[in-house]
Amino acid sequence: MSDFREQALRYHAEPRPGKISIEISKAAETVTDLALAYSPGVAEPVREIAADPDNIYKYTAKGNMVAVISNGTAILGLGNLGHLASKPVMEGKALLFKRFAGLDSIDIEVSHRTTEEFITTVANIADTFGGINLEDIKAPECFEIEQELIKRCNIPVFHDDQHGTAIVTAAGLLNALEIQGKDIRKAIIVCMGAGAAAIACMELLIKCGAMREHIYMLDTKGVIHTRREDLNQYKQLCANNTDKRTLEDALQGADVFVGVSGPDVLPPAALSLMADKPVIFACSNPDPEIKPELAHAERGDLIMATGRSDYPNQVNNVLCFPFIFRGALDVRASVINDEMKLAAVQAIRAIAKEPVPQEVLLAAKVSSLEFGKGYIIPKPMDPRLLPRVARAVAEAAVSSGVARIPMPAAYFDA
Amino acid sequence: MSDFREQALRYHAEPRPGKISIEISKAAETVTDLALAYSPGVAEPVREIAADPDNIYKYTAKGNMVAVISNGTAILGLGNLGHLASKPVMEGKALLFKRFAGLDSIDIEVSHRTTEEFITTVANIADTFGGINLEDIKAPECFEIEQELIKRCNIPVFHDDQHGTAIVTAAGLLNALEIQGKDIRKAIIVCMGAGAAAIACMELLIKCGAMREHIYMLDTKGVIHTRREDLNQYKQLCANNTDKRTLEDALQGADVFVGVSGPDVLPPAALSLMADKPVIFACSNPDPEIKPELAHAERGDLIMATGRSDYPNQVNNVLCFPFIFRGALDVRASVINDEMKLAAVQAIRAIAKEPVPQEVLLAAKVSSLEFGKGYIIPKPMDPRLLPRVARAVAEAAVSSGVARIPMPAAYFDA
Repeated sequence: MSDFREQALRYHAEPRPGKISIEISKAAETVTDLALAYSPGVAEPVREIAADPDNIYKYTAKGNMVAVISNGTAILGLGNLGHLASKPVMEGKALLFKRFAGLDSIDIEVSHRTTEEFITTVANIADTFGGINLEDIKAPECFEIEQELIKRCNIPVFHDDQHGTAIVTAAGLLNALEIQGKDIRKAIIVCMGAGAAAIACMELLIKCGAMREHIYMLDTKGVIHTRREDLNQYKQLCANNTDKRTLEDALQGADVFVGVSGPDVLPPAALSLMADKPVIFACSNPDPEIKPELAHAERGDLIMATGRSDYPNQVNNVLCFPFIFRGALDVRASVINDEMKLAAVQAIRAIAKEPVPQEVLLAAKVSSLEFGKGYIIPKPMDPRLLPRVARAVAEAAVSSGVARIPMPAAYFDA
Repeated sequence: MSDFREQALRYHAEPRPGKISIEISKAAETVTDLALAYSPGVAEPVREIAADPDNIYKYTAKGNMVAVISNGTAILGLGNLGHLASKPVMEGKALLFKRFAGLDSIDIEVSHRTTEEFITTVANIADTFGGINLEDIKAPECFEIEQELIKRCNIPVFHDDQHGTAIVTAAGLLNALEIQGKDIRKAIIVCMGAGAAAIACMELLIKCGAMREHIYMLDTKGVIHTRREDLNQYKQLCANNTDKRTLEDALQGADVFVGVSGPDVLPPAALSLMADKPVIFACSNPDPEIKPELAHAERGDLIMATGRSDYPNQVNNVLCFPFIFRGALDVRASVINDEMKLAAVQAIRAIAKEPVPQEVLLAAKVSSLEFGKGYIIPKPMDPRLLPRVARAVAEAAVSSGVARIPMPAAYFDA
């Protein structure tokens, strides 16, 4: 057993199994404490909520609680291993919500027969929580699941594999294009992969100004074009009316390569087909679509990002999901809409352009970080992410009309 | 607004709403910590669980996690106020699980159309947890719900309103009968109320030796007898082949009155109908079926218990549910069976007969407590409950063949 493997298993098993626990957040020592917490005192908030359901936010933990929910059909890059095997990932996500945004978060692993049954199960428990983070659910079911749950629930429902990835990718990509002196509206974009994350990334880039006709998506069968007859309804929406068929066809003159697929699918030699100053996002994890050292050896003028923490420019969902939920819950948003997603993109972008606090340099073990080819996106440990991204998201919720309470005073004190 | 009401609402609202929160139980500060907790380290326990589902107990919080689940159809004594209004109670229950037995516990409030949909929803999320405590679900649906969930889940499912109440009542009642010099096998028992708690109490008393034909249950229409044609399937099982029709008929020569109904339904004068040395359990909360001061004024030879903490002999579910789950989870029992319930009854009984630790006297604000008419059942704050009841339950699970792991060493160290 490798050292890291052993260490990871020991971390999860000792001294007690798992990574999260429940704590009591009120006094609960004396008989009097317990008379307030349970019978007879608890009858008072019960009556208040029965009289006005909104009081649930005043007297219970709902408003700060995010459920991380999965059926385990697309766990990390490991595939469909079932809902039980997904539990360590979901607990890990709950840990990250708490660690980065102070959100209480609990994992729920769902077994089910049909997609409809999954949706009904989640909708039926949704009122327990302030928000729902869907995770590691395979495409194409994840699209229907998210859309239906958004309709049925009056709390934010967010499939992080789609939108978290899309937001962080868009933030990094827009900064990279800016550094390369390119305009998103003119950029030719090749996307290797056509799963949930890939489709969400391209949809969000379009909302950021990219032209749908400049985007070439590829699945295992090559370019997704309008004459293919093997496309599901989601891929059909991504089809380009083009004669390009292969990755090499698509890369001709392309400005951007986004990989959300698998290891080593981008041959280094193919980089020479791309336009000047290309941008390469090789997000497959842990093994990117092209190794950064090979890419840089091939071309000196590119900007490269990966999903890995041991290379510069890590595209990491943790830059987004804790803070987008923090902002959404702080103004009790009913959904996480496009305005909020785009606000998160811009807030993340802006942080990367500002001087980096000393503690971030220490955590990243580097002596300096300056906006440029090797630093297009903030580091996960950057303490500015919480106040800045959450505030931008909350403001966008308010201005787009989906917030149910005003901005909390704490945002203005900060 | 009364002082207590105001205090209860403030307790729930400030400084943050609710009574429980999620905590991170592992190191989660550095980049290295997070690489173990989430990507890439989390892939290791995922693979281990995919290879052997039992490893979920080794690497996740499941084994120490109890879900407290309700649909809010029978909240406390307040009735069907809906699943939202039940949330403070369920959070309170989660708090008690942690406070008394160190069990992590999270509330889940379920909305649903049909009973079947409720059952499916809970069954579909059950694998997340080590056990399920059902709470405040109205009769008769609660019977079908519990029975079906026990069948569908391979973790303990326990409707506390039924069995927790029954176990504590049985423990107190058997001790009271012993003090009064009566034999449960000969005792005439009158049960006012025929809801979930009442039926469960009587069923458990029968397993403790009571004779079914000596039990007279009453609902709002009087004695439940075999010639009534308005009985649901559950009440039919409780029907007595008798000519008794009224409460007064039933009380003639009765040894025991158990009230699980509503305030002041037992007129003091009716006590004179009962046999010598009767036992009165008036468990309606907060207002018992008969006020203890009125009962004692009527007869000097009775033993009286209520659901209230401000009178002697409080029948409080907290004497049971934290510890029965602690014992069940510690040996990974697949169910909570009769053997485990009866073991809990005997363990609770035994504690009441032993000298009381100083800290219990301090918490109860009394100078002494001795087994007798005024002390038939332990106090909720008794620290002996956790090791003793949990151990008895765990041993019963092992000896009855429903435990999936051996007794933990900690039970033998204690």
